[in-house]
Amino acid sequence: MTAASRRRILSGMQATGRLHLGNYLGALQNWVRLQDEYDSFFFVADWHALTTAYENPSDIPAATREILIDFLAAGLDPGRCTIFVQSRILEHAELHLLFSMFTPTPWLERVPSYKEKQETLTDRDLTTYGFLGYPLLQAADILIYKADAVPVGIDQLPHLELTREVARRFNHLYRSVFPEPEALLTAYPKVPGLDGRKMSKSYDNAIYLSETVEEMGAKIKVMVTDPARKRRNDPGDPNVCPAFGLHLIFTGEDDRAMIEKECRRAGIGCVDCKKILIQGVERGVAALVERRRSLAARWSDVEEAVRAGTDRARGVARETMVEVREAMGLA
Amino acid sequence: MTAASRRRILSGMQATGRLHLGNYLGALQNWVRLQDEYDSFFFVADWHALTTAYENPSDIPAATREILIDFLAAGLDPGRCTIFVQSRILEHAELHLLFSMFTPTPWLERVPSYKEKQETLTDRDLTTYGFLGYPLLQAADILIYKADAVPVGIDQLPHLELTREVARRFNHLYRSVFPEPEALLTAYPKVPGLDGRKMSKSYDNAIYLSETVEEMGAKIKVMVTDPARKRRNDPGDPNVCPAFGLHLIFTGEDDRAMIEKECRRAGIGCVDCKKILIQGVERGVAALVERRRSLAARWSDVEEAVRAGTDRARGVARETMVEVREAMGLA
Repeated sequence: MTAASRRRILSGMQATGRLHLGNYLGALQNWVRLQDEYDSFFFVADWHALTTAYENPSDIPAATREILIDFLAAGLDPGRCTIFVQSRILEHAELHLLFSMFTPTPWLERVPSYKEKQETLTDRDLTTYGFLGYPLLQAADILIYKADAVPVGIDQLPHLELTREVARRFNHLYRSVFPEPEALLTAYPKVPGLDGRKMSKSYDNAIYLSETVEEMGAKIKVMVTDPARKRRNDPGDPNVCPAFGLHLIFTGEDDRAMIEKECRRAGIGCVDCKKILIQGVERGVAALVERRRSLAARWSDVEEAVRAGTDRARGVARETMVEVREAMGLA
Repeated sequence: MTAASRRRILSGMQATGRLHLGNYLGALQNWVRLQDEYDSFFFVADWHALTTAYENPSDIPAATREILIDFLAAGLDPGRCTIFVQSRILEHAELHLLFSMFTPTPWLERVPSYKEKQETLTDRDLTTYGFLGYPLLQAADILIYKADAVPVGIDQLPHLELTREVARRFNHLYRSVFPEPEALLTAYPKVPGLDGRKMSKSYDNAIYLSETVEEMGAKIKVMVTDPARKRRNDPGDPNVCPAFGLHLIFTGEDDRAMIEKECRRAGIGCVDCKKILIQGVERGVAALVERRRSLAARWSDVEEAVRAGTDRARGVARETMVEVREAMGLA
């Protein structure tokens, strides 16, 4: 199937740090599956990283590089999908500016993540104009490629709804230019972090794709288990054990059934249980880690692939902007 | 003096309609005087026009063309200053986006024109994100050229103060890239409109530079005079007469002294008084109107001059953006 006949999807990762197992299992794996079915655009959102990291943006270029390597290591193939970096395509900023002209501020204020993040990230000043406009930049990111669908998690649905509203408003005010992108919701496993909360870089509880399997193993060895199981002889409850949450993802059914049964009657200790888990994780990520090591050693190849992807993306973005400017009478 | 050794100024006109005598006397004439003293950048702000005209932007391209012709007709010389169109330089949008990341929303909410315009232009929805961000786009317009000074009227001072604050914040957070532009305040005459209020396109009381001298004369013939002077024999008060406000600008001292004296004792009627005014206006704008007619007939020359100016401006903007991206770690 040619790119033209396939429906188009787009998704991105914010350049706020290296990717971890949660990003991989929750999004990247899914993107890899989708890249042949759709005309796929995947990008690193380095401007978005500024919304929360504007005071210290010096890590953004390194994060961008690492994420690009993560993309390819996970199995995204620059020959089969379009990989690019947001800030290299100024047209995103132009479309964001044009959208800002007709988007009511209350639409942005009522996006749930606006208040939520302000409440969670209390160490940062998030009263900025750019943080408020974050979902509008996202709308520009998506619509400039006329994406038909966006692979998202449930938490991103309000952002996508705003994107659809912005598309409708543009089409209504000027001329029908944008499709209303659909959500491509994927069920993905809940990935527990080392402390039992959801794996997240902001919780400092993550296992990163850029770590060696030894480093991953060392982290798992000290990760939280059922907090009620204090001694070896106490029976445990796999349902509340974060390590078991990882078993659900990485360990084969037979081993998992054994562990579940033995944990409940203190037949297996956490140390032995984790040995099995570490083997499972190693099997699960070995190929990725190996590809990652190889890619990191030939950064210029990665860079070249991303440059080609960015050029292709820019071409598509420019075509859309010609239509947009014409529709708005700015041609 | 070379461009490099002169201080740089920048100013713009919003593409919301043709320019009128108020714009000419209040700003353009001043720019013409400044163009040799400074390395001067003058532009048509077509994106800014969208902040209030987003629902019907179809007039913006025509307004942009007319204003460019007004610029040249007024005496701006593309060989001596840089004339460009805002929307053709995407870097303005990029810098606006980057500024948005560290600019507190309250800084924008407290700019006086934000609430004022919302209260004045009640027929329009001005709750948009772009209208709120208007002064920040202006900051990007100014700072991207590292302007040392900005010729402004007193009403624009709060906007310029915001620009200076944004420059300071950028320089403090990242690296010193931007000068803090000074206000180049010019005393300019109060230009009364046909109804006695300040001349303004939004009041529909303006005399446009694109009108013929006959059209201007016809407007002056019916313009408001001292409302208390109902009959020819009533004495008038020049201090409250809008037509006399124009005499102050366009009529020679001797005639003006005569009019002032005779009006007060009903020695001259409004019809004769206006005949003298019309002659004065004709003398004042004849050269401009003639240049304008000639320029309008060779639009492609104007376009070519603006293209060259836009290319020069873009070159300067790009140099600044290289520094900006480096300073912010986005290079």
